[in-house]
Amino acid sequence: MVILGIDPGLALTGYGVIDFSAGKYKVLTYGCISTVAHSPMPQRLRSIYTGLSQLIDIYQPQDIAFEELFFAQNVTTGIAVAQARGAALIAAAQHTENLYEYTPMQIKQAVTGWGRAEKRQMQQMVKLLLNMEEIAKPDDAADALAVALTHSNCLHAKEMYKIK
Amino acid sequence: MVILGIDPGLALTGYGVIDFSAGKYKVLTYGCISTVAHSPMPQRLRSIYTGLSQLIDIYQPQDIAFEELFFAQNVTTGIAVAQARGAALIAAAQHTENLYEYTPMQIKQAVTGWGRAEKRQMQQMVKLLLNMEEIAKPDDAADALAVALTHSNCLHAKEMYKIK
Repeated sequence: MVILGIDPGLALTGYGVIDFSAGKYKVLTYGCISTVAHSPMPQRLRSIYTGLSQLIDIYQPQDIAFEELFFAQNVTTGIAVAQARGAALIAAAQHTENLYEYTPMQIKQAVTGWGRAEKRQMQQMVKLLLNMEEIAKPDDAADALAVALTHSNCLHAKEMYKIK
Repeated sequence: MVILGIDPGLALTGYGVIDFSAGKYKVLTYGCISTVAHSPMPQRLRSIYTGLSQLIDIYQPQDIAFEELFFAQNVTTGIAVAQARGAALIAAAQHTENLYEYTPMQIKQAVTGWGRAEKRQMQQMVKLLLNMEEIAKPDDAADALAVALTHSNCLHAKEMYKIK
């Protein structure tokens, strides 16, 4: 089963595609879609949408999992991130209705066994679980792989995490 | 010149298409894209994106103007509206880079001459200026026509209002 994990953001949208078959994980690809800082918002959203659409076309994931949106900073940042997430959601919804989301704490819990693990511990666990030779870079790509892993861990209960 | 005005929202996205040629306005179409209240967010965003894309394909607007986003209510509503606006922006950005935005106050000022006009006054002015037989319904469609009118009023200074 092919799972796409997405960590949405305006400047960097991390993605990770894993295949989980016969109890084994395989990383198919990972990386980031980056948008130019001072280019107009509509073009940045379009880049995210187009980039993810192409990725989905190539890998045809059965399920797509998102890191859930939280507003840590100010409202302006919040609007930007929400719009970026909207762009990613549309690209995903064009492909499938199997869309899921997990909070940062759920992801940490699933990957490291501890909801308050540090970023570095998460990244080490992602590397170990996916038999990677190096830690995935940049951080957003590692986060996206962690989301995909979390979803594969929750397959037995996936209806619970469907995006409403 | 064909102008598309958009009043983005998650439940209702108003649109209005006007043609402004030889000093005269003509309404080409107006209405709302509505999404089902309890359907999943990704499908609702996709409906907005698809609906606007089809409208743009048909009318081929040269410029597209948006009502600017404000957060009157709570953060959850804000996230929903920002995502809806993201969906509308992507549809628009697939077609043109000529994307503009106006605040509610700028729209009231442009249409009625008074930045604090009431909704009913706005709607009456939209009807008069566009030689319509009735007030456009629903409100979101009338608002979208008002955005399109505002943009046609600001054509001399349109670089100022380009979406950044």
